[in-house]
Amino acid sequence: MIPSLKKIGIIGGGQLGKMTCEASLPMGLHIEILDSEGCPASIAATNSVIGSISSAEDIYTFGKSLDVISYEIESIAIEGLIRLQKEGKTIIPSVEALQTIRDKGLQKKYYTKNNTPTIRFCVPESRLDFESFINECVEEKIVLKHRTGGYDGKGVEILNKVDALLRADEFNNYLLEQFLEKIIEYSVIVAVGNDGIKTYPLVEMYFNESSNLVEFLFSPAQIDSKTEMDCRDIAMHAVMGLNSKGLFAVELIKHNNSIYVNEIAPRPHNSGHHTMEGCTTSQFEQFVRVLFDLPLGDTSLLMPCAMVNLVGGANDIGNYQLEHGKELLQMSGVYIHLYNKKDIKPNRKMGHINIIASNFEELIEKAKRVQALKTFNCF
Amino acid sequence: MIPSLKKIGIIGGGQLGKMTCEASLPMGLHIEILDSEGCPASIAATNSVIGSISSAEDIYTFGKSLDVISYEIESIAIEGLIRLQKEGKTIIPSVEALQTIRDKGLQKKYYTKNNTPTIRFCVPESRLDFESFINECVEEKIVLKHRTGGYDGKGVEILNKVDALLRADEFNNYLLEQFLEKIIEYSVIVAVGNDGIKTYPLVEMYFNESSNLVEFLFSPAQIDSKTEMDCRDIAMHAVMGLNSKGLFAVELIKHNNSIYVNEIAPRPHNSGHHTMEGCTTSQFEQFVRVLFDLPLGDTSLLMPCAMVNLVGGANDIGNYQLEHGKELLQMSGVYIHLYNKKDIKPNRKMGHINIIASNFEELIEKAKRVQALKTFNCF
Repeated sequence: MIPSLKKIGIIGGGQLGKMTCEASLPMGLHIEILDSEGCPASIAATNSVIGSISSAEDIYTFGKSLDVISYEIESIAIEGLIRLQKEGKTIIPSVEALQTIRDKGLQKKYYTKNNTPTIRFCVPESRLDFESFINECVEEKIVLKHRTGGYDGKGVEILNKVDALLRADEFNNYLLEQFLEKIIEYSVIVAVGNDGIKTYPLVEMYFNESSNLVEFLFSPAQIDSKTEMDCRDIAMHAVMGLNSKGLFAVELIKHNNSIYVNEIAPRPHNSGHHTMEGCTTSQFEQFVRVLFDLPLGDTSLLMPCAMVNLVGGANDIGNYQLEHGKELLQMSGVYIHLYNKKDIKPNRKMGHINIIASNFEELIEKAKRVQALKTFNCF
Repeated sequence: MIPSLKKIGIIGGGQLGKMTCEASLPMGLHIEILDSEGCPASIAATNSVIGSISSAEDIYTFGKSLDVISYEIESIAIEGLIRLQKEGKTIIPSVEALQTIRDKGLQKKYYTKNNTPTIRFCVPESRLDFESFINECVEEKIVLKHRTGGYDGKGVEILNKVDALLRADEFNNYLLEQFLEKIIEYSVIVAVGNDGIKTYPLVEMYFNESSNLVEFLFSPAQIDSKTEMDCRDIAMHAVMGLNSKGLFAVELIKHNNSIYVNEIAPRPHNSGHHTMEGCTTSQFEQFVRVLFDLPLGDTSLLMPCAMVNLVGGANDIGNYQLEHGKELLQMSGVYIHLYNKKDIKPNRKMGHINIIASNFEELIEKAKRVQALKTFNCF
């Protein structure tokens, strides 16, 4: 019980690691981070170990003095984790869960095996598989996803069938998906601890069409309560089959009144950032509770809340400051989170702004004002 | 504007420094701390400088590379601050405000000069002054306060007149105050920034009679709105006369329908800890905003909230864990804050627990449960 005698480490010191460390500090809990020098999490971690998340050796060296090892990014040298697991270390989420999730092909096959509804797909094992699936789809477009390494909207392409067919030689790299129009995207954060499993209220998301990044999201979703419960049940079921402790984000897609699981992330997620001020227990505190083997916290919303991502604009390079920081800080119920990144780049996630309000109309009004004020000055 | 180019340091790395650093991290703001190695704030500070807060030289060395210097405790080597001020550094709150506040005699004289209502007092300049004041008081008891160095309830004594008169030789050390029975104690946090002054909602406090520490407090105070406004006005007036930026706590006493200022603290305060989850802007974020010259945040309550201090019990020594941490973490709207202190001692403030609830009855019910569960296991 807290303070804890367990030693916990997280591989990766980006914004997710930073915010997890922030959530551990109030309870006097210590978290170590493995990443490069001056990474975002380094200002909040109890101890920052310099090393590469792509090096199995660095991961092993980092983990061998710890009790529990987690990660805030999927693309890490998993061999290091496997070695640690063999030596009796606790890996959260489990190595098996990470192996299933980080290959989008295996992830899709898992959905089928686990009776989880997902959009029609093909994990091509041959050039023929690849071409047949494309030709069978009635829609004009097709979704190509890189099986590994994609993040932040990268690695997903929507192509015309003709263009898609040109990639047939690389069939091994891709997961193919039916293209659905007029979808609504939701997300459910799911926490699995030693005392059970809890879901967060449904989040409704809007994506920026050019960068494919979440631009704006809010909770509660504008949806009837039966659909909300269905979504949370589907998300819970999708995670339970992984048979692993951890904090997971389940992205859902609604199309013609059907709900599909799009993707699972085995870590805190952009679509849960609003929980920091909007929910009784933030996703980051919940993650900390899971890692330290503490009881799960209440996931209920405190009030309507929204999140706006702060992303580098097309011409943003170098040092940066929020252009309208003063106006933003003068707004009530507006919380600026900046990720301590050294410099800004186009499409780089620099931070986010959480917004709370006493009702949905006020929330949307405030979120629109924040959207208009979220630009950076670069110098 | 954030991120800020200013370099900010705080003298003292106790729990107030720790929670101030915690509040700076989400905005990507860096704060340096001066204190001994492994101090509570060291897990949250961007940089912990090892040194003594009682050494003017250490304070000067710490401050000379910074732009703004503040402190989280009054009993520091003020000569170091004076030297930094002379060299053009910004000290918040000002050296003059600290000088007035840290001598309870000067503080009382300031109230008189500033037309701030305060309990009848004497700052004795002679043995005769000391004895005359005691003899003039009609009450059986008298309050003796050490003019300097008191904190956490230490340095305040309530004596029978006969016993008080035995201290007449040391008249120089004491401030004498009329003893009032059946008082209610309140507190108002006041923030003075570059864009104005804001008060927090009134807090009602209960003290532990043996340790004289705040045991339990809640907000909103159970008081009519006119008295609430009067208290906030008096607190604001009391702080404005100091003519300094900063975050201040004004302790108030209500007796027979009169409101008196008891004491001002020139820093975040135990009576403002509930603001961390209970108010739109916590006292610590507000303090950060003042230090970094950012606009003041909204001070309104999000919902009814309470705070329970976690204090070492009479026999608590050594390593410690919360005995009922699990039960506490299972309660909704209950937030454990632990101060990262190495060992526990009787009456040492180890942490606090904030509680939020949708109504006052539920709040008090939860606070009573927390009170019953707040014990430590020592080993």
